[in-house]
Amino acid sequence: MIPDEEFMQSDSVPGPSKEEIRCLVMCKAMINSEDVVVDVGCGSGGFTVESAHKARKVIALDKNPEAIEITSKNIQKHKIQDKVQLIEGDALKVIEQLNPFDVLLVGGSSGDLPQIIAKGLEKLNTNGRVLITSILLETRVEAVQTLKKMGLSPEVVEVTIAKGKMMERGTMMMGRNPITITSAVKK
Amino acid sequence: MIPDEEFMQSDSVPGPSKEEIRCLVMCKAMINSEDVVVDVGCGSGGFTVESAHKARKVIALDKNPEAIEITSKNIQKHKIQDKVQLIEGDALKVIEQLNPFDVLLVGGSSGDLPQIIAKGLEKLNTNGRVLITSILLETRVEAVQTLKKMGLSPEVVEVTIAKGKMMERGTMMMGRNPITITSAVKK
Amino acid sequence: MIPDEEFMQSDSVPGPSKEEIRCLVMCKAMINSEDVVVDVGCGSGGFTVESAHKARKVIALDKNPEAIEITSKNIQKHKIQDKVQLIEGDALKVIEQLNPFDVLLVGGSSGDLPQIIAKGLEKLNTNGRVLITSILLETRVEAVQTLKKMGLSPEVVEVTIAKGKMMERGTMMMGRNPITITSAVKK
Amino acid sequence: MIPDEEFMQSDSVPGPSKEEIRCLVMCKAMINSEDVVVDVGCGSGGFTVESAHKARKVIALDKNPEAIEITSKNIQKHKIQDKVQLIEGDALKVIEQLNPFDVLLVGGSSGDLPQIIAKGLEKLNTNGRVLITSILLETRVEAVQTLKKMGLSPEVVEVTIAKGKMMERGTMMMGRNPITITSAVKK
Repeated sequence: MIPDEEFMQSDSVPGPSKEEIRCLVMCKAMINSEDVVVDVGCGSGGFTVESAHKARKVIALDKNPEAIEITSKNIQKHKIQDKVQLIEGDALKVIEQLNPFDVLLVGGSSGDLPQIIAKGLEKLNTNGRVLITSILLETRVEAVQTLKKMGLSPEVVEVTIAKGKMMERGTMMMGRNPITITSAVKK
Repeated sequence: MIPDEEFMQSDSVPGPSKEEIRCLVMCKAMINSEDVVVDVGCGSGGFTVESAHKARKVIALDKNPEAIEITSKNIQKHKIQDKVQLIEGDALKVIEQLNPFDVLLVGGSSGDLPQIIAKGLEKLNTNGRVLITSILLETRVEAVQTLKKMGLSPEVVEVTIAKGKMMERGTMMMGRNPITITSAVKK
Repeated sequence: MIPDEEFMQSDSVPGPSKEEIRCLVMCKAMINSEDVVVDVGCGSGGFTVESAHKARKVIALDKNPEAIEITSKNIQKHKIQDKVQLIEGDALKVIEQLNPFDVLLVGGSSGDLPQIIAKGLEKLNTNGRVLITSILLETRVEAVQTLKKMGLSPEVVEVTIAKGKMMERGTMMMGRNPITITSAVKK
Repeated sequence: MIPDEEFMQSDSVPGPSKEEIRCLVMCKAMINSEDVVVDVGCGSGGFTVESAHKARKVIALDKNPEAIEITSKNIQKHKIQDKVQLIEGDALKVIEQLNPFDVLLVGGSSGDLPQIIAKGLEKLNTNGRVLITSILLETRVEAVQTLKKMGLSPEVVEVTIAKGKMMERGTMMMGRNPITITSAVKK
């Protein structure tokens, strides 16, 4: 996994997701070298960069121009330009134009999560995976309910990480914000 | 329980412990109105103030003059001067001079945790309670091992709290550092 | 706080809530000796018993006759019969008949959480407290959204507890299910 | 990652580690196809199987014959016999006989953790990784202290996972035991 400090960060854009969350999302996404991945609300590009190391192609979307800018820098830094298509725009409109794909990652959703999942699932190939990472209580429930409504069986994993900070007196445990990963496979 | 914001804070002194931790420590300390409580490494005085609302008397120690200063301010603010004796000095030396007491709270220990627990237990009345709060991996184990060596049966509780922050988009869960509370009753 | 093992349990009724959760709910409920507490979905009676040690009166409701039975046994065991009124029935109908009260605790809600909160808030005295404990993702959001819709400012606390089990080899940390406590004060 | 249910389990042997823990350990181990991995205290073989999918060779040790038996079954089931050498015996003695290797995984240690880490580090190639997973408070500290004493810079990550269980009423969050992963790179 790529260490957190090897990503460039922007003050005005959330992310990138911490190493452990990127790791778990990648494990659950089961991306292979033939897969096309769509990263909705790519933020700082954490999932974009990780996915590009495994997939055939990654399409990264965000409606925030500052997110596009910092993701673009991380794409350069990690030398994955050949594999990534970066699109500034509204997720719902962009997804409609896309060809079918294999993995749908949803980080940011700006209030449109149910519609993004629904539209994304239409374009997802059979055996494709959808993964939603939530930092809000509300989007956890939206993710579960939308996936169930679409006939899928969601898996829900809440991850709480604390990291040791080495001090003279000992190892101080520093808590992180809990993240929920909701995922499903399209049958 | 007293809300976090009703304590004065100092940049150079840790604490006070958050509301939920103070609550759990108070529950487990089972302080009644006849009890004398000793608060070792009182820091900003969080446990000192809470204990004073329940106990007959609280003796608060810290070797850091800045801790004594901020605890003193919190004692004034919460109007518990009559019940609290505040002592700047080395815990091991101070405890030696004290009369027997009913509850030993250990927040800060500056590397002397096993000796503080051992010396404190000598002065603890039968059925007295000892409680150690740890933010370091190492002091969790020191607390357990010292209590076991002294023939007590420690209870160990690790507490991880996340608090909701109300945002326009929803309720963002903000993680706190995990805290371990190790406690025992003297038989 | 009352140790977990001092409650009788029923195989067919959830609860009682673990000591640490009872402790935190009691801290946040700030019950005084004049208060009337309503415990909705009392389950095994954990909150009923704790509240009765602090309040003037506790009214405990559950629609499940087995919950009423085990709560009744715990009321006997803890000798709080004089303070508790135990009612088998539908929460929405029962609350309608009650006089105003000071604290509303909601553990179980059988799918009616928003209505129970709404009806309960109507009967809650000014400065009264409402506390909802959730084990489900969905009820966390329902609690927050209903309180916000009623004009209150909810506090949301997710609590994850691990307890040390003493083994020959060392202290094994045993995880508990995370619980969310959502609470507010009526203005 | 391999789902939990695709491992055979034994009543008398711990593990295999849950999917999320296997995923995080594999991410941090950064195993490539040239690497030799030593899995000490292989238990049910969870890390053995995962490692074998990435490494050139895996040497799995356990002193418990029942662990050897269940790991052997999981090796068969996952068809990785060609890559795995399974050794029943005392870790300290076995490690001494081994050629240098690239990754040292320590799950079980039967009280010899500091010595196992020390002996293992001697045999670890430069840029080799060592990872210790701890369920005990005590082994977390032993792992950190031993790695520091050997001149390495340990990373400590405590992982707490809760998984959603789909019920008629909603998504119930089921807590898991917290696991600590301590790791370092040999310079």
